[in-house]
Amino acid sequence: MNKPQGKVLTFDFGGTKLAGAIVNKATGEINHYRRKQTPKSMGSQGSLDVIYALSDEILKLNNGNEIQAIGISFGGPITRDGQMIIKSQHVEGWDYFPLPEVLSKHFGLPVYMENDANAAALGEWFYGAGEQCESLFYAQVSTGIGSGIIINGKIYRGMGLAGEFGHLTIEDDGLECACGKLGCLESYSSGWGIASRARKIYPQMAEESPLRQLTLGRPENITTELIFEAYRQGDEKMRALVRSAMASLARCLADTVCILDPERVVIGGGIAKSKEIIEAEIMPYLEKYIPKFIRSHFDLRFSVMGGQETLFGAALLSEEKFR
Amino acid sequence: MNKPQGKVLTFDFGGTKLAGAIVNKATGEINHYRRKQTPKSMGSQGSLDVIYALSDEILKLNNGNEIQAIGISFGGPITRDGQMIIKSQHVEGWDYFPLPEVLSKHFGLPVYMENDANAAALGEWFYGAGEQCESLFYAQVSTGIGSGIIINGKIYRGMGLAGEFGHLTIEDDGLECACGKLGCLESYSSGWGIASRARKIYPQMAEESPLRQLTLGRPENITTELIFEAYRQGDEKMRALVRSAMASLARCLADTVCILDPERVVIGGGIAKSKEIIEAEIMPYLEKYIPKFIRSHFDLRFSVMGGQETLFGAALLSEEKFR
Repeated sequence: MNKPQGKVLTFDFGGTKLAGAIVNKATGEINHYRRKQTPKSMGSQGSLDVIYALSDEILKLNNGNEIQAIGISFGGPITRDGQMIIKSQHVEGWDYFPLPEVLSKHFGLPVYMENDANAAALGEWFYGAGEQCESLFYAQVSTGIGSGIIINGKIYRGMGLAGEFGHLTIEDDGLECACGKLGCLESYSSGWGIASRARKIYPQMAEESPLRQLTLGRPENITTELIFEAYRQGDEKMRALVRSAMASLARCLADTVCILDPERVVIGGGIAKSKEIIEAEIMPYLEKYIPKFIRSHFDLRFSVMGGQETLFGAALLSEEKFR
Repeated sequence: MNKPQGKVLTFDFGGTKLAGAIVNKATGEINHYRRKQTPKSMGSQGSLDVIYALSDEILKLNNGNEIQAIGISFGGPITRDGQMIIKSQHVEGWDYFPLPEVLSKHFGLPVYMENDANAAALGEWFYGAGEQCESLFYAQVSTGIGSGIIINGKIYRGMGLAGEFGHLTIEDDGLECACGKLGCLESYSSGWGIASRARKIYPQMAEESPLRQLTLGRPENITTELIFEAYRQGDEKMRALVRSAMASLARCLADTVCILDPERVVIGGGIAKSKEIIEAEIMPYLEKYIPKFIRSHFDLRFSVMGGQETLFGAALLSEEKFR
């Protein structure tokens, strides 16, 4: 494979933050990383202003070195051709917005866009735990749950929405999901799902339980980080909750593995930060749910890129062979 | 795409029958179709003898016309390179048997082999309801449940076992499956699964119920055909059973569609013969389980090839571009 060359200005549009950096594709280095809050209620122009401010800072630090292209990771569904945002669940004003065209006009550079799970999968596949394997299933477990599929060195998109892993049904007529369905995996095992389930059982938890202590008795202080910390401190209710969330995640991973039988599975996203807990809890359930004849070659890894896989993936979009 | 050319001698190795025919790839015609019972207990040599007898009949009818290659559809897992059977669930003596090599020596022709679900998917994709679409998920619901995935005109195999659709978990700690897992879809919604569930409730069924009438009061007479006939005659218990089986199938199809978002889904296998029942029962559940944003372009068809899709797929294996 020809090695990727050149530098790409990359952006990661998340629900809470807008990040940018310059990625050197050849060396796999990331430079001039900057992030700002996503302005939630100022429409697309509000976000564009933040992007321009961010890029001014980054380009100043870049000191006139050549930029080949712009790569965008967007936290929401986009059209299959990468030309248009379909929707943002978190920020208003983005529906059917042709972000690449607008940025291309502003910067005078080619612009490539992918949704964040696909971008992360591509970045992790090339530079990280995917190790450029033949087929990768990358499960992104953060606030929400998404996934990306890389087959023969390219993002597999299906009709444009392949990898909607968070919307596999884990419980018939279960919890209501933002997608309109009941019982989606995302409502059980995502950061958001785990936190909201913790909030529900909070009133029944003992005063002296680690989670109550860590959150100072206020359920609005619950975060997944504190839930995992409570787990570490031996909080029985949080241990049971995390175990149940990992059982659900394992079952959906196993189902996916039955369909795709990929060379490798990588778990990434915020949850990968608590790798030792996830691994301990998920393994027995993967053992349970993956058929023996596939389990023998099943290969699970965790993201090694610390959240920057999306920017790396966004940078790689500038190479036609990966798109 | 270059049109396939030439004639291929094809075999379909099933658990109950061994079928053979000559497929004209260019015209999509099948000729000299013959079938015999699979000898269950005479080892690989027993089956080979039947194949040779079958091919003698077929080649005699073929009258010396040129045969380009041999294509095999095998009802069980094979190695990813298509060179070896891994196992037959139904017939003894096949474990790690290099069937293509043996047949190639006997016939002096190149031999290509695929498992039956992949072969059926390829045949249906090219000549049938798949209509050569960009991405196809073909669910084969017969005695067992398998599936085949065609992406960009090629069989997608993953590490070799992709498409193990029958082993998605539909019920946690549910019915025991031959694969060693609990709660696999195959135990609920396959022909075998539906029939064995009917056998379980048979003692509680009223004397005058259609299924009891059709089976002359003997549970060993139960077949899926009679269950569907009982359904047509208004048997309430069989209606509930078929509905439950279709709810399970729909949920697993929906999960698969979330992962693959294929251009088209085709349901094939023996169950496709009762298309009007399957369609009526499965549609409300697909509506329930497929997220709205995918449902809008979800496209379900039924096999139109009457069981011969495996032979057509086996024939197409002789073209390198499809393998």
